Amino acid sequence: MKSFKIALAQFSPHVGNIDANTQKMIEQANQAKKDDAQIIIFPELSTIGYPAEDLVLRPSVTKRTEQAFKQLSEVKDIVMVFGFVHQTEDGLRYNSAAVMKDGEVLGVYNKQILPNYSVFDEKRYFTEGHQHLVFDYLGHKFGVLICEDVWSLPTVQQLAQLNINTALVLNSSPYEVGKPQHRIETMSALAKELNINLVYCNQVGGQDDLVFDGTSFVLNKSGEIALQAPSFQEGVYIADFDATQHEFSKGLITPQLDTMAEIYQSLVLATRDYVQRSGFPGVILGLSGGIDSALTLAIAADAIGGDKVQAVMMPYKYTAQISVEDAAEQAKNMGVTFGIAEINPIVNGFMQTLFPFFGNAPADATEENLQARSRGTLLMALSNKFGNLVLSTGNKSELSVGYCTLYGDMVGGFAVLKDVYKTIVFELAKYRNSISETPVIPERVITRPPSAELRPDQKDQDSLPAYDVLDAILYAYIEEDMSQDDIIAKGFDAEVVQKVIRLVDVNEYKRRQGAIGPRISSRAFSRERRYPIVNGWKAGI
Amino acid sequence: MKSFKIALAQFSPHVGNIDANTQKMIEQANQAKKDDAQIIIFPELSTIGYPAEDLVLRPSVTKRTEQAFKQLSEVKDIVMVFGFVHQTEDGLRYNSAAVMKDGEVLGVYNKQILPNYSVFDEKRYFTEGHQHLVFDYLGHKFGVLICEDVWSLPTVQQLAQLNINTALVLNSSPYEVGKPQHRIETMSALAKELNINLVYCNQVGGQDDLVFDGTSFVLNKSGEIALQAPSFQEGVYIADFDATQHEFSKGLITPQLDTMAEIYQSLVLATRDYVQRSGFPGVILGLSGGIDSALTLAIAADAIGGDKVQAVMMPYKYTAQISVEDAAEQAKNMGVTFGIAEINPIVNGFMQTLFPFFGNAPADATEENLQARSRGTLLMALSNKFGNLVLSTGNKSELSVGYCTLYGDMVGGFAVLKDVYKTIVFELAKYRNSISETPVIPERVITRPPSAELRPDQKDQDSLPAYDVLDAILYAYIEEDMSQDDIIAKGFDAEVVQKVIRLVDVNEYKRRQGAIGPRISSRAFSRERRYPIVNGWKAGI
Repeated sequence: MKSFKIALAQFSPHVGNIDANTQKMIEQANQAKKDDAQIIIFPELSTIGYPAEDLVLRPSVTKRTEQAFKQLSEVKDIVMVFGFVHQTEDGLRYNSAAVMKDGEVLGVYNKQILPNYSVFDEKRYFTEGHQHLVFDYLGHKFGVLICEDVWSLPTVQQLAQLNINTALVLNSSPYEVGKPQHRIETMSALAKELNINLVYCNQVGGQDDLVFDGTSFVLNKSGEIALQAPSFQEGVYIADFDATQHEFSKGLITPQLDTMAEIYQSLVLATRDYVQRSGFPGVILGLSGGIDSALTLAIAADAIGGDKVQAVMMPYKYTAQISVEDAAEQAKNMGVTFGIAEINPIVNGFMQTLFPFFGNAPADATEENLQARSRGTLLMALSNKFGNLVLSTGNKSELSVGYCTLYGDMVGGFAVLKDVYKTIVFELAKYRNSISETPVIPERVITRPPSAELRPDQKDQDSLPAYDVLDAILYAYIEEDMSQDDIIAKGFDAEVVQKVIRLVDVNEYKRRQGAIGPRISSRAFSRERRYPIVNGWKAGI
Repeated sequence: MKSFKIALAQFSPHVGNIDANTQKMIEQANQAKKDDAQIIIFPELSTIGYPAEDLVLRPSVTKRTEQAFKQLSEVKDIVMVFGFVHQTEDGLRYNSAAVMKDGEVLGVYNKQILPNYSVFDEKRYFTEGHQHLVFDYLGHKFGVLICEDVWSLPTVQQLAQLNINTALVLNSSPYEVGKPQHRIETMSALAKELNINLVYCNQVGGQDDLVFDGTSFVLNKSGEIALQAPSFQEGVYIADFDATQHEFSKGLITPQLDTMAEIYQSLVLATRDYVQRSGFPGVILGLSGGIDSALTLAIAADAIGGDKVQAVMMPYKYTAQISVEDAAEQAKNMGVTFGIAEINPIVNGFMQTLFPFFGNAPADATEENLQARSRGTLLMALSNKFGNLVLSTGNKSELSVGYCTLYGDMVGGFAVLKDVYKTIVFELAKYRNSISETPVIPERVITRPPSAELRPDQKDQDSLPAYDVLDAILYAYIEEDMSQDDIIAKGFDAEVVQKVIRLVDVNEYKRRQGAIGPRISSRAFSRERRYPIVNGWKAGI
């Protein structure tokens, strides 16, 4: 057994762009060679990126993948283990890994365990493989696994029984809070139990509503970490196998991020990749003086630079003066362009046109929505004229209960806080203030009682329970699938629980038309929590 | 072998409402008994309705299903074959059918073939069954199959080899153009080949973007139709097995609908069920004087009655006088409330607020979108104030290429023509005129060149190819998955094809935020064609 170096390409693909991804893989392989690596491993489905959804079904995937193989076959003197869509002559399609050296394919592995739950739909696209792949190189025996495979104990046991030294695992494992830690802990116990080394290479980057954190790692069969790559950063990381010690030497071990840092960075990366890969020159958002837009502004500026962010305050007669002041201060702190656009003439125009229809009907949510929709349309007009993407600023608590206006504050192409409960919004704001010399979000924005400012002296808590109570009920109903009766039995007020659940149920239509936004929870709306709009379930047992 | 009658409950469930569905099943069983039926068959998953999506994953499905069984067990003197979510003690979940008589469960069948393509996600929810169910009754041998099972020849062959006389097939097979005919033809060949009678009972009704047509039928082993229920109507239909003739007697055989009648009725049913099951008192829509809104108006009025439909014309300076006249005439023809709301003061309000930002920047799509968004916001205000659901009027051709304004003409809860290409819109308008004594859609609405009327003398064909060309390219790219190169090779202008495909690709974000609407094609957006928004595929091979 010889010593060797293996490169983990923590790779951020452009989903669907097989050609560009292949070029980047070649660059990373060349970089790994400069670092004297003999092997390089890429993430799951690295050529097309994950998840490519129905692009996988387009017939020309095969032709495009053949071209990728041709290009990759020009890379010499390094073993490449990479992921691809494998269309076989009998018409089946697999989620596969190829082992290639000097233009020769030494072996192909077809993923055996296809996840088809949560955000995953792999059985829509792929057939299950039924065979392990083992190869010898430099006197060392390697096995190949792909993502979900490694969470199936029987599958890994079978591979271990083939007397491999090291399992190479190609992954596209999306981020959720605590997942990086959970992966390493689980895999460490597995490596130890099965007495194998484990090289875990994960995709990084934002793809629509999914964020991939990377956090690739190498474990020795003792279960000890030999390498841990940073989260949310693309890069090629080298692990060094020392034949004399029969183990990977300790290399870069990036400390785990604290929870708020982890979430914050995931949102920054998701936002940056969405904006840049969609080709927008910058973003625009409405500032209200409240905490949601303040946090969104900070994330946006951290993602793409304050000079590419435009902020607009759109006051109306219910807007407090301190809201305008705080909005201006946030914008100044983050170095973004700031403008003020009064909505009075617009709301007046609507009311004039609607008078023959409304007559003297009493004011209700209609008039509040008109304010929100006037603002939404203003943002869209500025976006249309100057090309910046509108960021939506609503949080998961609001979206859950529909405390937001469709085509109003919900407008935008990317909803940065879509999967972030309001109680976490507060934590993230404090976290962001803690990492810069002076706070970027004014203290009183964090401490003021939240208000939509759509009528005089309005407070969120006039219509909703306190956010800690609301979020606890929402978490039990959405994340934990608890029934109404069981949530009430936990000690919450029955009427409050009934109201909250009813609001969650009837607002599915709003969420369905909302912008996508980064998933950080274990039950994100849309891709993960798939509920019908017409829904007769009704709460209860 | 005795003679018997079997009732086909062509059932329209309220998805998720197990209790209400069970009550309706009991009523239908009692009705069947009055008609002297000894057996009644319901559609697939009749207790919870199809597709219940992630409601199936809620833990209390089991408790609610147990209650349903308890209620159904009160029905005596008829064999009931119905569908339910079957959670077993080992933690597995099946899509199953129960055979119940006098409160006793004679057998349970677990669906063997789970579709996980197109609009189907059954592998997300269910485990595959591995055993056939056969039962004897009245000297007759029945086998049970569920929907996709019957499209798998080996599965049906195995069942036929158990010497059954009749296969009872529970279905929730969604409509698409030509599907009713295709089902009967395929099943007729199958019945003949395997020498079995076939009782095919299908769900009916709209559920979000899916429409179920019903069109249940009974086939003799000769392949001949003994019963064909009407499409798009709920009802209990009785088939009569004549022991002396060893076959089902010829009963009600509803003629197949013509294509346009079929599509039209599917849209009417989908709209009615969406509106009513969402609990709206009526609908509101914007009339432009164009054909899309004219057709949508007719469908809406046919679905829920003209008295529950409110139409609003929202003219601006580019609106032709004949558009206003035609809109008024359509409204009058369909007996709906009609109002006019000028958008001038609103657009002026927006331009006043935006002036400091826009300065003297030349007018572009921004100003056109402002008109559309002013209209959208007006409709939403009227909806908010009076409670009617906004119907969106865009067609599939527009949505494909993004020739529509997000938060503008795209506002609404239900997009009636979402899956209907413009060329079919014309056909449907002519069809609707042909079935009433006097045309409801003025002739010149059909013959005028389509225009969005967002700038002087604008015509759709200034920006888009002629609709017959556009639709042919769209069909090839969307429905047939053809590559750009292959479409050009068919003889279309290369530049036009490139432009159209680019527009389809970059407008995924708009479609993602659009309202749901009834699927009538074999590749509907959203549930069926699942494309990433950030998408580097790029047209070509």
